[in-house]
Amino acid sequence: MRFESPMASLRESVPFLSFIPTSRYARRERSPRDNDFMFGNPHEMPLPGYVASLARSAVPQDKDWFAYKMNERLPTETIARALSSHTGLDWSPDDVFLTTGGFAAIAASVRAIAGPGDEVVFLSPPWFFYELLIRAAGATPVRVPLEAPAFDLPHDAIARALTPRTRAVLINSPHNPTGRVYDARALQELARLLDARSQREDRPIFLLSDEAYRRIVFDGRRAPSPAEHYARTIVLYSYGKQLLAPGQRIGYAAVPPAMPEREALREALTLAIWASGYVFPNALLQHALPEIESQCVDISAIARRRDRMVPGLEAMGLQVVRPEGTFYVLVRAPDGDEARLVDRLADRDTYVLPGSIVELPGWVRISLTANDAMVERGLAAFASVVG
Amino acid sequence: MRFESPMASLRESVPFLSFIPTSRYARRERSPRDNDFMFGNPHEMPLPGYVASLARSAVPQDKDWFAYKMNERLPTETIARALSSHTGLDWSPDDVFLTTGGFAAIAASVRAIAGPGDEVVFLSPPWFFYELLIRAAGATPVRVPLEAPAFDLPHDAIARALTPRTRAVLINSPHNPTGRVYDARALQELARLLDARSQREDRPIFLLSDEAYRRIVFDGRRAPSPAEHYARTIVLYSYGKQLLAPGQRIGYAAVPPAMPEREALREALTLAIWASGYVFPNALLQHALPEIESQCVDISAIARRRDRMVPGLEAMGLQVVRPEGTFYVLVRAPDGDEARLVDRLADRDTYVLPGSIVELPGWVRISLTANDAMVERGLAAFASVVG
Repeated sequence: MRFESPMASLRESVPFLSFIPTSRYARRERSPRDNDFMFGNPHEMPLPGYVASLARSAVPQDKDWFAYKMNERLPTETIARALSSHTGLDWSPDDVFLTTGGFAAIAASVRAIAGPGDEVVFLSPPWFFYELLIRAAGATPVRVPLEAPAFDLPHDAIARALTPRTRAVLINSPHNPTGRVYDARALQELARLLDARSQREDRPIFLLSDEAYRRIVFDGRRAPSPAEHYARTIVLYSYGKQLLAPGQRIGYAAVPPAMPEREALREALTLAIWASGYVFPNALLQHALPEIESQCVDISAIARRRDRMVPGLEAMGLQVVRPEGTFYVLVRAPDGDEARLVDRLADRDTYVLPGSIVELPGWVRISLTANDAMVERGLAAFASVVG
Repeated sequence: MRFESPMASLRESVPFLSFIPTSRYARRERSPRDNDFMFGNPHEMPLPGYVASLARSAVPQDKDWFAYKMNERLPTETIARALSSHTGLDWSPDDVFLTTGGFAAIAASVRAIAGPGDEVVFLSPPWFFYELLIRAAGATPVRVPLEAPAFDLPHDAIARALTPRTRAVLINSPHNPTGRVYDARALQELARLLDARSQREDRPIFLLSDEAYRRIVFDGRRAPSPAEHYARTIVLYSYGKQLLAPGQRIGYAAVPPAMPEREALREALTLAIWASGYVFPNALLQHALPEIESQCVDISAIARRRDRMVPGLEAMGLQVVRPEGTFYVLVRAPDGDEARLVDRLADRDTYVLPGSIVELPGWVRISLTANDAMVERGLAAFASVVG
């Protein structure tokens, strides 16, 4: 009997999903000797302060403690204050839409502004799921490549990609996997471009700003939000990175005070959150949010691993991208032979992400959420493979 | 500047969303004297055993405790065993897809089997969000009315609603808001109908079985799953009802062992769960699931409230539907004037759901999750309004 799922056509948009089950990483016999640089997953015990906040939030203080939750006041007020402090703008709790992590914030926001016949521009190398989420909304993804090894914000290429059907440009800073943090000047130039085009077409082009790594920055840097420069920004955030607890899903989409389409977006985002399957965060995490908002992994430890890994790999003659933020280090495979590098490292229980999975063939991505011992053993594995 | 969200056209599918903010219920000054019969929300403190399970699950036992989770083995095995025990079929953990509650299970399952050009049949009065979720998937909702006051499964009307474009029929037993539990004979007849049509069209018609209230049944009844009678059933479940903790979202979509499209559905449901925004349940709830699977609100207390409420209202000359399951009692408004009844009850701090919100004008819905004191005061309010 004929059955084809409407989802089947989306399969090709997610190389991640076909890679994972068949990979040597998935099939490995797990061992404490594994050097696991694959994902932004924890390799040390959770933050004690985070665990304490969860324990406190699990104790009901009234009969409504675990009742239906939407955008509860305490978490949205906390987030509005944090955004105000970061950006210098005056965010309203009414413009904060809580979601089960950044993934759902992206899914709902894309749905809120783009549908069939619309285009959404995204930058490549992208996060694993941008294309899937744009296509799942019925919209058309338009890819703009970043140029290695600088991976600067490509204003001219973005300008060329805009059409009368462009409803949004989706960017990510600090950028996974390159570690680039776009500065105020780069964001201003993008804002000017999008403003001019919105005016010309008499239709808003929104900037979807994936800021999941906003707090994971090095060397005293600050990651400015595009919302500081462009009023039509929707900030998309996940607490999964700063807490290194990606299985506990809480994040948000937030609209800045000067957004001209603020009222329309309130309804649109609300409907999109329901239409995505009621992707409000759990009651327990909403109760915990005022405490966990300010908790963060030890960024100095991640910076320390970067500062061991990057010169260590460069000393082997490898081309490496030194990240300004995020968890990730990009390494170019010798002769661009990514598959061979991935495979030979796996022979040494060392697992890195093949660049092809994020549209960056010839490179591999290393996650610095690995612990210090993995970093040392990983460097040794690279040395024996490359040497 | 022109902006219309693709979501705007879905607004009309959710009378719930426009009702809530403007209702007297939302605008009331909250008081312990409120008689709140509005939703299936808790009106007593959470189950102590549930709270203890959350506390235990909040304590990390390894570094992966809060890492990314998908369909973890312990919860899917627990669920497969529970489904096997309930249905007598041999469910596989590989066919259990964990979701953030029943809402996301419905959203993802509809997406997995129906898209633009496809039809999904649902029964009216429906749950608040069926139409939204069918339309959000791009499919066309086809409404089949249930006939008051018996609200039997309307086989003939369903048969007439099926077309070559029907991809699924969505049913709900125990049924919200009527409290009907469809018995094996009614489900068998539906299975025969869907089997015959699937054969004739050479395309499967799936049965989406919303079983959120499966455990909330009275008088020693069992709510059979349609999966016991029709292999092309997808069981949709939420733990929000049995635990009366709807703000803590965990549920599932599960495919029975004899499903002919089992393999294709594994990929389709997985993609749909990602495409909906990664609607896997939180790590903490996944760890808790083996314990909470068997926990349940005190059904005898709900039955006791039913047995106080139903005869109490009938003694006032009101037409009442005595539920076989769920949290709900339907009451017909005198002269069918639902708005007047709702309003006069609100004057007495008594809040019931207007039937219009669930396509049942002329009726109101009472939730038995109200506590015993509310039931007594609510009956008095009805008496003073109706008398």
